[in-house]
Amino acid sequence: MVGIVVQNIARAASDVIDGLAACGVATVHEAQGRTGLLANHMRPIYPGARIAGSAVTISAPPGDNWMVHVAIEQLQANDILVLAPTSPCEDGYFGDLLATSAQARGCRGLVIDAGVRDVRDLTDMGFPVWSKAVFAQGTVKNTLGSVNVPVVCAGASVQPGDVIIADDDGVCVVPREKAEDVLKAAQAREANETEKRNKLAAGVLGLDMYKMRERLEKEGLRYV
Amino acid sequence: MVGIVVQNIARAASDVIDGLAACGVATVHEAQGRTGLLANHMRPIYPGARIAGSAVTISAPPGDNWMVHVAIEQLQANDILVLAPTSPCEDGYFGDLLATSAQARGCRGLVIDAGVRDVRDLTDMGFPVWSKAVFAQGTVKNTLGSVNVPVVCAGASVQPGDVIIADDDGVCVVPREKAEDVLKAAQAREANETEKRNKLAAGVLGLDMYKMRERLEKEGLRYV
Amino acid sequence: MVGIVVQNIARAASDVIDGLAACGVATVHEAQGRTGLLANHMRPIYPGARIAGSAVTISAPPGDNWMVHVAIEQLQANDILVLAPTSPCEDGYFGDLLATSAQARGCRGLVIDAGVRDVRDLTDMGFPVWSKAVFAQGTVKNTLGSVNVPVVCAGASVQPGDVIIADDDGVCVVPREKAEDVLKAAQAREANETEKRNKLAAGVLGLDMYKMRERLEKEGLRYV
Amino acid sequence: MVGIVVQNIARAASDVIDGLAACGVATVHEAQGRTGLLANHMRPIYPGARIAGSAVTISAPPGDNWMVHVAIEQLQANDILVLAPTSPCEDGYFGDLLATSAQARGCRGLVIDAGVRDVRDLTDMGFPVWSKAVFAQGTVKNTLGSVNVPVVCAGASVQPGDVIIADDDGVCVVPREKAEDVLKAAQAREANETEKRNKLAAGVLGLDMYKMRERLEKEGLRYV
Amino acid sequence: MVGIVVQNIARAASDVIDGLAACGVATVHEAQGRTGLLANHMRPIYPGARIAGSAVTISAPPGDNWMVHVAIEQLQANDILVLAPTSPCEDGYFGDLLATSAQARGCRGLVIDAGVRDVRDLTDMGFPVWSKAVFAQGTVKNTLGSVNVPVVCAGASVQPGDVIIADDDGVCVVPREKAEDVLKAAQAREANETEKRNKLAAGVLGLDMYKMRERLEKEGLRYV
Amino acid sequence: MVGIVVQNIARAASDVIDGLAACGVATVHEAQGRTGLLANHMRPIYPGARIAGSAVTISAPPGDNWMVHVAIEQLQANDILVLAPTSPCEDGYFGDLLATSAQARGCRGLVIDAGVRDVRDLTDMGFPVWSKAVFAQGTVKNTLGSVNVPVVCAGASVQPGDVIIADDDGVCVVPREKAEDVLKAAQAREANETEKRNKLAAGVLGLDMYKMRERLEKEGLRYV
Repeated sequence: MVGIVVQNIARAASDVIDGLAACGVATVHEAQGRTGLLANHMRPIYPGARIAGSAVTISAPPGDNWMVHVAIEQLQANDILVLAPTSPCEDGYFGDLLATSAQARGCRGLVIDAGVRDVRDLTDMGFPVWSKAVFAQGTVKNTLGSVNVPVVCAGASVQPGDVIIADDDGVCVVPREKAEDVLKAAQAREANETEKRNKLAAGVLGLDMYKMRERLEKEGLRYV
Repeated sequence: MVGIVVQNIARAASDVIDGLAACGVATVHEAQGRTGLLANHMRPIYPGARIAGSAVTISAPPGDNWMVHVAIEQLQANDILVLAPTSPCEDGYFGDLLATSAQARGCRGLVIDAGVRDVRDLTDMGFPVWSKAVFAQGTVKNTLGSVNVPVVCAGASVQPGDVIIADDDGVCVVPREKAEDVLKAAQAREANETEKRNKLAAGVLGLDMYKMRERLEKEGLRYV
Repeated sequence: MVGIVVQNIARAASDVIDGLAACGVATVHEAQGRTGLLANHMRPIYPGARIAGSAVTISAPPGDNWMVHVAIEQLQANDILVLAPTSPCEDGYFGDLLATSAQARGCRGLVIDAGVRDVRDLTDMGFPVWSKAVFAQGTVKNTLGSVNVPVVCAGASVQPGDVIIADDDGVCVVPREKAEDVLKAAQAREANETEKRNKLAAGVLGLDMYKMRERLEKEGLRYV
Repeated sequence: MVGIVVQNIARAASDVIDGLAACGVATVHEAQGRTGLLANHMRPIYPGARIAGSAVTISAPPGDNWMVHVAIEQLQANDILVLAPTSPCEDGYFGDLLATSAQARGCRGLVIDAGVRDVRDLTDMGFPVWSKAVFAQGTVKNTLGSVNVPVVCAGASVQPGDVIIADDDGVCVVPREKAEDVLKAAQAREANETEKRNKLAAGVLGLDMYKMRERLEKEGLRYV
Repeated sequence: MVGIVVQNIARAASDVIDGLAACGVATVHEAQGRTGLLANHMRPIYPGARIAGSAVTISAPPGDNWMVHVAIEQLQANDILVLAPTSPCEDGYFGDLLATSAQARGCRGLVIDAGVRDVRDLTDMGFPVWSKAVFAQGTVKNTLGSVNVPVVCAGASVQPGDVIIADDDGVCVVPREKAEDVLKAAQAREANETEKRNKLAAGVLGLDMYKMRERLEKEGLRYV
Repeated sequence: MVGIVVQNIARAASDVIDGLAACGVATVHEAQGRTGLLANHMRPIYPGARIAGSAVTISAPPGDNWMVHVAIEQLQANDILVLAPTSPCEDGYFGDLLATSAQARGCRGLVIDAGVRDVRDLTDMGFPVWSKAVFAQGTVKNTLGSVNVPVVCAGASVQPGDVIIADDDGVCVVPREKAEDVLKAAQAREANETEKRNKLAAGVLGLDMYKMRERLEKEGLRYV
């Protein structure tokens, strides 16, 4: 089960991927029924990035980044690397050299439930990373893992080719086969939100806009 | 004890509140005898904000933000929302729609011992939040909590109407009835600090300025 | 063993120190055989600083910053204060007044396995700090510690006079007597990295550049 | 505000206290509307103890147990010491000598949001402790705190004289003036639970016993 | 996707399940290629239990245990309840009443990535639980989740009907369709371990038994 | 610096070692000036063990226990294995087979700033372990570390041959060359404690026994 590289993975359509990026993590997460969110310890190394891409997954042993090199060969334009260590680890699996290589293949960023280093260089390069830690600790290249196998990354199941959306709010995964439907739901939600935002900005209360007063009273809310 | 909204709460005078904001958290905390500090897991979503306001408190169940809508109606200009979940929770209770509504009522920011989302939008809006987490995880609206009741938020007791001060150093609460006295003490402290700062910048040592040498020697400090 | 101030400590040559700063934490850490890294909970209070300096060490009781005043007198230009509490503590031992005093003596920054406060002022002053926490919690001046004794700071052994390197990736300590050799190794590594970076940017794969394919095959990696 | 010892505090009736001990933490917590629970990092040093008593509170600086000695003089039979450090600290404030002294005065146990040591001795003595940590780290006696002032301990507000209940499930505080009412509610709850327990043991489902099926269907639960 | 109860799930053969229990978590985990382990924050409420059973999974909102009642109806003899909250939560979803009901249906235990309470009663009943926390905090019954859907529990993917093994080392999940093969591999491993254990007890070194010396020398290990 | 096994290390006299075990961690830690304590995340796998021995140190890569096999050959009777991973790791480096081998050589226990497994077997064998975690997660044997080199383990510097004391309060290290003096100080402390304990048990207050009242008054303590 270890030591496998799956070479041909299906990916979602690029306009669907880009559409999901535009909606952002919070909206997409709501649109697919509040599923697919990675744990909130996954934080961006710099603020402001908002990306989406197809997951090229890496299952790697603790403290060993050999498989990252293997995975980079599997990257296509607009992919996102997703690394899950086989046991908890915060070592710096990834730095500016690997980012240079990944970026040369069109990779949009890295999601790693472990550590990253050279964050100043990565920031200068505009290569966004969502990670559990920033840590200069180096890794070795001695033990096999796998590439493009199903992983659990930061508490979320990720299949290779699933759509990853990442921004300042965190990271969300959308199953590839549901991506188009989720995009529609997300866009509908967005349209709806603009209207709501305008009302709220004008001073309408959520209590009235969402017609909550009756239900609150029924549940026993008392104003004193 | 649950399901109560207290509508009329006393607030400190606005010049006192603004004076405390100008002093900042570290100074105010010192000025009131090193009390009232919230736990240091309360971090700002963006750097540079420094606010003070009257606490409108929310006691909310885990994963349920219904009471936030109720609380927004209770906001007056220059208030700060203070949310304490009834058990530890990092869900994203609050996002850009609620912020729009709160801001429309003059709310200065949110202090939440839980999660927040849409942080890029909140940053663009200039709506500052101090939170335990950034997390896109959504909430429901099914269970009552209370508004404007006493809460323990991030380890500090907060009464509705207390003055909240928040900046890059964290969050501090000043009991409403002590706010004026604390402001005076804080301002005295500030005046005093400028003088000290100038001496130290000129090379005077704290050892001399604070006359510590004798006491250190008496305690047995040895220079080798 | 407590209550000692060592006044004369040896320091590395300033060009060696500055050379190490230019290489940065990740490179220096690699160059000295992946040793000397402080734990990754040590984070900078603002991004972008990259410094190196000689360690003036402080062993301080929890919640007591008396020894910081003592240590400042021992500072020479380009030193870095390194504070390790004698038991875990996140109190704000250090703020803008102490920073003013330290900066007046040429101190380049602070590395503290505890808390720091007045971070907005410190940012404005350009006084960088790597800390475990930002916390306004004040400290007292009642109990002795020591200055310029060996400490374990955030999991790393630091001798007074060792070279500290700190940047966005964290903090690394280089034993003073090895500093020159480590600098050479780091610079060699850097030269080497530029060449590698260019190749990778041109699309050469790490798999080929590092000649990994044969070893991967031997270990049993299978492409499917 | 620091340096105060309140000598005469009111206590609940001893039969009320003992009645609450018999009900246990989970039942009492439910009976008073799910309030008063300390954070779940408060764990017993050995399993099986179940106690209640009147809180003698200690507000102590980090790493300084001077006030524990002061508090012991204030103990009456069946009291429980409740220590809250003024900033987070896991030092071992309390060991077998202090326990011997407290036990000599009839103290039933210690609740401490910090560390404890000599746990093997304390276990042998039958002196139960609920703490955040077990840590041999010693403390000093240099800085004042207060005794029998209101504290926030592990996230819960505790007034001197409040009833503390502690068992394997954790620790709960009941305001003194509500103790009698809470006891009645807890006992009613217990009686009720026995009946429920018998039904459930006989195979009756909670779905039927609590008549949940209709509401579940209305909410949209689907069996597939 | 929420609000679904899958009623008919396939289960592994009972002798396979019992065989896996006898092997224990560490051996089974090794035997299936070091996969399937839940995070190590999952700890038993009392030492010494070693169980296996078929997973009846629960996806539950934070602080809401309504679905536990629904799940109990789905239990068959020798099943294990597996609860994953939809966002991190440490509330006490489960206590002695639910355990009585589950035990009445032949349930062997509970694995919950959240909190449990009444642990003294559960210990007396011999109903083992592996949980993230012990916490008396109560829950509500207001929001739907699902039963017998795939979940990620403490970082591991669990399908309903998978075999759960739990003992003092933690919790492991074996996919139902692989259970028989994994059992064979685990039993082979065990047989093999007895022989090894005897040799090691007799003083044979692992260095010799596993013939490591040559490889260590080749890697450059130096004895000084 | 990696890949070294130091074969001949000096050890303290066995009666000194055994004397330190009898004193226990808290007393020894006090007797050597409150130094040498490992972090409090180091917990025993079962209660009641109290051991001391000479440290045979292991510096091991994350997730790789190859060096444990190498270290076992270096064990003499009454030694204690001390393992520090080169970066934070909670994998189960050690189980019943390694314990059997270590015990065959007279090893008294293991102190590991990482994970351990087979804890039920280790408990049955009476082989005590103090660890950061219990975790069944397996390790590999692919990368060199070192044996009997200086390490920082759980925040404390340990030299090979130093005396390790471990009991229910945690773990303490005493430098070999100071062991005899520390033993004397610890025994003196113990004698002294018996007398104190008797007085306190008889109702004498610490306030009087330690003559604290005058100093407390001078510091400003007020009884109200």
